[in-house]
Amino acid sequence: MLRAEVALARAEATVGLVPPSAVEAIAAAAERERFDPVALGRAARASGNPVVPLVEALRTAVGEESAQWVHWGATSQDILDTATMLVVRDATSAIDRSLATLADGCAALTRLHRQTLMVGRSLLQPALPTTFGLKTAGWLTAVDRARRHLERSVNELPLQLGGAAGTLASLGEEGPAVVAAVADSLSLVQPVLPWHTHRQQVAEVAGALAIVAGTANKITYDVALLMQAEVAEVSERTGNGRGGSSTLPQKHNPVSAAIVGGASRRVTALVGVVYGSLAQEHERAVGAWHAEWATVTELLRLSGGAAAATADCIAGLTVHPDSMASNLTAAGQELLAERVTMELTRRAGRAPALAVVADALAVAGGSGSTFAVALEEAGATAWMSGEEIGALVDPSTYVGSSDLFIDRALAAHESLGGG
Amino acid sequence: MLRAEVALARAEATVGLVPPSAVEAIAAAAERERFDPVALGRAARASGNPVVPLVEALRTAVGEESAQWVHWGATSQDILDTATMLVVRDATSAIDRSLATLADGCAALTRLHRQTLMVGRSLLQPALPTTFGLKTAGWLTAVDRARRHLERSVNELPLQLGGAAGTLASLGEEGPAVVAAVADSLSLVQPVLPWHTHRQQVAEVAGALAIVAGTANKITYDVALLMQAEVAEVSERTGNGRGGSSTLPQKHNPVSAAIVGGASRRVTALVGVVYGSLAQEHERAVGAWHAEWATVTELLRLSGGAAAATADCIAGLTVHPDSMASNLTAAGQELLAERVTMELTRRAGRAPALAVVADALAVAGGSGSTFAVALEEAGATAWMSGEEIGALVDPSTYVGSSDLFIDRALAAHESLGGG
Amino acid sequence: MLRAEVALARAEATVGLVPPSAVEAIAAAAERERFDPVALGRAARASGNPVVPLVEALRTAVGEESAQWVHWGATSQDILDTATMLVVRDATSAIDRSLATLADGCAALTRLHRQTLMVGRSLLQPALPTTFGLKTAGWLTAVDRARRHLERSVNELPLQLGGAAGTLASLGEEGPAVVAAVADSLSLVQPVLPWHTHRQQVAEVAGALAIVAGTANKITYDVALLMQAEVAEVSERTGNGRGGSSTLPQKHNPVSAAIVGGASRRVTALVGVVYGSLAQEHERAVGAWHAEWATVTELLRLSGGAAAATADCIAGLTVHPDSMASNLTAAGQELLAERVTMELTRRAGRAPALAVVADALAVAGGSGSTFAVALEEAGATAWMSGEEIGALVDPSTYVGSSDLFIDRALAAHESLGGG
Amino acid sequence: MLRAEVALARAEATVGLVPPSAVEAIAAAAERERFDPVALGRAARASGNPVVPLVEALRTAVGEESAQWVHWGATSQDILDTATMLVVRDATSAIDRSLATLADGCAALTRLHRQTLMVGRSLLQPALPTTFGLKTAGWLTAVDRARRHLERSVNELPLQLGGAAGTLASLGEEGPAVVAAVADSLSLVQPVLPWHTHRQQVAEVAGALAIVAGTANKITYDVALLMQAEVAEVSERTGNGRGGSSTLPQKHNPVSAAIVGGASRRVTALVGVVYGSLAQEHERAVGAWHAEWATVTELLRLSGGAAAATADCIAGLTVHPDSMASNLTAAGQELLAERVTMELTRRAGRAPALAVVADALAVAGGSGSTFAVALEEAGATAWMSGEEIGALVDPSTYVGSSDLFIDRALAAHESLGGG
Repeated sequence: MLRAEVALARAEATVGLVPPSAVEAIAAAAERERFDPVALGRAARASGNPVVPLVEALRTAVGEESAQWVHWGATSQDILDTATMLVVRDATSAIDRSLATLADGCAALTRLHRQTLMVGRSLLQPALPTTFGLKTAGWLTAVDRARRHLERSVNELPLQLGGAAGTLASLGEEGPAVVAAVADSLSLVQPVLPWHTHRQQVAEVAGALAIVAGTANKITYDVALLMQAEVAEVSERTGNGRGGSSTLPQKHNPVSAAIVGGASRRVTALVGVVYGSLAQEHERAVGAWHAEWATVTELLRLSGGAAAATADCIAGLTVHPDSMASNLTAAGQELLAERVTMELTRRAGRAPALAVVADALAVAGGSGSTFAVALEEAGATAWMSGEEIGALVDPSTYVGSSDLFIDRALAAHESLGGG
Repeated sequence: MLRAEVALARAEATVGLVPPSAVEAIAAAAERERFDPVALGRAARASGNPVVPLVEALRTAVGEESAQWVHWGATSQDILDTATMLVVRDATSAIDRSLATLADGCAALTRLHRQTLMVGRSLLQPALPTTFGLKTAGWLTAVDRARRHLERSVNELPLQLGGAAGTLASLGEEGPAVVAAVADSLSLVQPVLPWHTHRQQVAEVAGALAIVAGTANKITYDVALLMQAEVAEVSERTGNGRGGSSTLPQKHNPVSAAIVGGASRRVTALVGVVYGSLAQEHERAVGAWHAEWATVTELLRLSGGAAAATADCIAGLTVHPDSMASNLTAAGQELLAERVTMELTRRAGRAPALAVVADALAVAGGSGSTFAVALEEAGATAWMSGEEIGALVDPSTYVGSSDLFIDRALAAHESLGGG
Repeated sequence: MLRAEVALARAEATVGLVPPSAVEAIAAAAERERFDPVALGRAARASGNPVVPLVEALRTAVGEESAQWVHWGATSQDILDTATMLVVRDATSAIDRSLATLADGCAALTRLHRQTLMVGRSLLQPALPTTFGLKTAGWLTAVDRARRHLERSVNELPLQLGGAAGTLASLGEEGPAVVAAVADSLSLVQPVLPWHTHRQQVAEVAGALAIVAGTANKITYDVALLMQAEVAEVSERTGNGRGGSSTLPQKHNPVSAAIVGGASRRVTALVGVVYGSLAQEHERAVGAWHAEWATVTELLRLSGGAAAATADCIAGLTVHPDSMASNLTAAGQELLAERVTMELTRRAGRAPALAVVADALAVAGGSGSTFAVALEEAGATAWMSGEEIGALVDPSTYVGSSDLFIDRALAAHESLGGG
Repeated sequence: MLRAEVALARAEATVGLVPPSAVEAIAAAAERERFDPVALGRAARASGNPVVPLVEALRTAVGEESAQWVHWGATSQDILDTATMLVVRDATSAIDRSLATLADGCAALTRLHRQTLMVGRSLLQPALPTTFGLKTAGWLTAVDRARRHLERSVNELPLQLGGAAGTLASLGEEGPAVVAAVADSLSLVQPVLPWHTHRQQVAEVAGALAIVAGTANKITYDVALLMQAEVAEVSERTGNGRGGSSTLPQKHNPVSAAIVGGASRRVTALVGVVYGSLAQEHERAVGAWHAEWATVTELLRLSGGAAAATADCIAGLTVHPDSMASNLTAAGQELLAERVTMELTRRAGRAPALAVVADALAVAGGSGSTFAVALEEAGATAWMSGEEIGALVDPSTYVGSSDLFIDRALAAHESLGGG
């Protein structure tokens, strides 16, 4: 808010609305350390917003002579909205760095584990073989997309300067020149017109942050599921009490999922405040604008925290290909039932194929025999040799276009400048 | 879903996976009228999704010989997600048309009412003079922005085709060629990789729809506020029972705000389902994906209804410049207190200016005298003539950059092809 | 709505406002089958609510002579709100029956598995031994609580009858008598005053339904986690395609969690519509009331579906004590590290105890030796015998008050009339 | 959290688990001022919750000898959940006081304005005459209901004490006795069993707080609408900058609606976090529990702030019966069209009545003549005298059961101990 006030005074001086000496005084006084946020917060209750007491405090700090030029022609919302855009820019820039780190981490895992076979799971049940590299390529692509969407949502952050009703009458003929100068000095975009009660920009950022948090949640929850003792396919970094318990010395908790899961649930809810606040009355809302303030800060804080925690999780992730292999073995040759069914269908038609596979699955489930043996016993050999059956139930040859998808994901990542 | 199944079979035939005769049979059978949505819905409860019974019904319709080639190599999610993209494309195209009509309606009002003076209101209180044209230019800019954002969110809708775990193993070597052919035939984009549990695309559309609904709500609620009997600055179209009451024959209700307010509240809530469902387990979610289905349909329906109702509201809006003028008069010359204060501050300094204006406001509030007279009595004449005071309290000369902002809004609208 | 109209006419007849012959005509005409919901829905768009066309249709059905007495003195909201209360009563009664079945199912599992040892898991990691009976006793208590809360939220459902502005002026002196008679005939409560824009009752029901859906989600998601192939401690019922996949013949999906997870996510979002709609303008809202209609129906439908699906899940659940035992074994004696630490702390003090346990955990993790052996090697024998150590690492003697908690949960359930 | 730790140690001492000297040391050390919340917050990131560092700090403060008895047998969640219940109790007690003040304020307005005629408004349009006393009686009844619901939601707040998996194994045979003693000392209820992953209690409180905030929003938004310059029927208290603007010296803003509207929008969203977090995995959730912490605090803070601001708004409200009267006059005799229609229907039948009233409304709208004169001209005199028409269009005799409803609302309020 201080930056906005200084930029305003400076711009006004360039068109002669404010004396240069006042600008110097204002710029000198506008040091963050001089102002007590707690006191300003308290005073904000009476005035209904924090700009009123801040301006008062800034006037005092500036000294009597220049006090009147503080906040010249602006309304509280001009300062608060412009400050929000500055905070959004700084905070999303930090979030973007976390996302870049996270994406690079996913890319590194993808390169390493392109061939690492594991069970692909749908509805938490073994479905088909896949590779860990394809899983992380999915994470990578999702993060890159969330990142691009966030970038797009902030690449034209606008200045707010419209005065009390959006006409900018307070600045007379000089209004447009001041808008241009302030926008230039703060590196913000000049909007078509003041957006005091048209909050699409805020909503676009909020939506992009919700996608960031949700994407982080997808990744860390996958990690938590893979960390289950009975699955044990990855582990998060430990040390310095990380993941420890207050009572259970043997515990190794998936703390990233706890942090990110907590944050993303709150983001998901809070983004609704912003959408619900699009309907702002006339030239300034009574409540809807006020609901945005803390909400936007929380959205930045929580989605930023989620992105950073996920980047940290991925950077410290240990992968256990042995466990992946043994879970694949434990899932059994039944994991290839789709492949066998399709091949049998090609050769024998649908009804016989389904019947043979169903019989074999029933036998393999009940007895100790493998699915391949059960298939033979169920009559599959009428259409294919035992050797062919053996080849069909080999998971390592049934990962489809995994390699190609990985290539594409890495290429797309690299084309965005990712490493 | 039927279009997706046909496109799949056709693409598979081009690479030799499926016999051409089967494609013909499938295309012939895939007529919407043959299938009973209610029965499919009931059957979907057991299987957990509607694709399973649809495929069964399609196989029956296709006949024994070709039945096995229906849904070849696809998983339920491939069909459902692809179908969702097709529905999103069709529905958002209709929404876009409503938004175009709405924007053009706002532009027309803006051109007509560029000079129509009215009270600008903040927190539901008179703040400063403005013009109705500037208000509608604000609506226009907001609608154009919501529209562009929606367009951006759907301009690369991707095909979904990854098989049961996203590896596309079911299609073997031919997977990528089939993906390319299906994408081409449905005019969808080929994704980097299957996005079964990476729902950023869905979330981007949902967010854009929430902005559409919120923007519609802003406009129609402004209309409802302006239609209040005590304000009476605009009226919605009547006739054919529109806006009537079941008991009060004299009533003229702002029905657009009722419809849009109801719809946008639900959209605001439902969009959270989509963000909350970004965290989908492994290679297929258990619940989060299922939550999306009806939600996306509702989001399209409700935001589309809101856009259409708002376009209709604006097309039939009657503006009452006389009421705007009389409300401006009733607001009194005090509405120009900002202007007087700033001019007095320039001439006399801040403290005297504030004191004189405060005195004058106290007098003007209590007595029957105008603010101008009260200013004179409070001593303003020490710094400015009575004539100057009279000029300062004239609202028609205090609408600032209203005209320029209107020019910019119209130019931006026209540059998008708007009329 | 028809029931409300008939009850109104009947009550008005008792006080002489409406002729008895008209009541007979109205009651005879008010048959559900006569009215086309789709046509009424279409007509509702113009009037802004469905009561206006329904009343028109009812007047036509009633015949000219009695038509004027239809809807006498009522406003649309009277009929719609009263009808909502009737729907809420019927639907929550059905939901209550599902919850009763569900609770009884949990109680039955609790009685059967009071002694069934299993791994207790926190943050998806093995934490301590517990029993399956204690887990289901937790479910049972949660369901009973959700059920009681729902009952409390509907046990005084009020009539709505206040006329167009809540004064009931349309009924003159007879207003209170009519209210009493309608309330009596519909078995609804007389409210203190009309609640047209005071929707606390609706919000209380909505909140209770959200708790029902969330409780169902807790249970079915636990089931889905326990059904994971790597955990395999329970299975849902199969047969008739239940839990099957469109492509993977070996799959056995946790369909309850998919259905309930989908429904409860939507309920969680939709309940916010109702809370957000508490702020209704003056004597009738413009939008907030309209947002409630479909929302309340959806909340009833979705939470009712979730309750029924969960009851069904529990009724058909197969428990695998062998898997529970083998997972407990696999978790290792380390699962008892808390117990060992506490006993060692009592004997040796905190620092030595922590050191010995940490050493033993490090050894047991790395080597093949058990935690008990590792403890001996780490020096625990300075304070306790090997036999004592062996007793401490036995999970079957470390389930604390599990039995007592189960007794209490069953007693509480039975005291509510549960079986 | 410190209170919970002390109560735990004290209870454990009564059953001999912890030495009395340790209890004294713990109680002496557990002074809030000794602990740095910021440092604890930072340390909480690694451990995943704030209890771990608090226990560490408390152990240090207690001294080596007794350190081991701190947190004996408890898990982090026991302390955090119990502390949450204590915070909920204290905070809701303060909220209850605000609601009591608010209700008494509404009751006082109701007594004063029982006869104050005003326009009743539906969909923001004049509907029928009503009284300001009936409007405030509606507020009163809503507040009393919200208050009772909140009371009910906290009148059995339970202790949490179950150890790491809810078995309370850490306390051996003494578990139940310790639970009873801690519950007794903190005046909390003993739950049926530990509720670590069964959060119905938290959700019930959250729902009740959402109703409090929504009720406050209804009242303050009504006030803001009534404060519109064009309506001017009430004013909020001014003075000390309350309701002032940073730029517009004449402004008098409805600040209560801004504060409460902002808070209640956030509450509406945040309550969804709690419902969405009912689905907690197994014996401790990974994320869902963590999402609750800040959410519950925010819900208490925001709904408490909303209740207090609304109480303040009502206590300082100035009512303007003159404006109410003049708005009633301005609404015209048409406001009584319902009454005329019903009386004409009784005498002439529905069709003639509707025709006459429609004619009269068309005339009265277009010409300067009153509705009464227009009715005469439209032929109403065929069924009623001019005198009768004059009596029918008198709003003061058409407020129905307003008086009775007020009596009931005040009686209900007084029966709850309200003043």
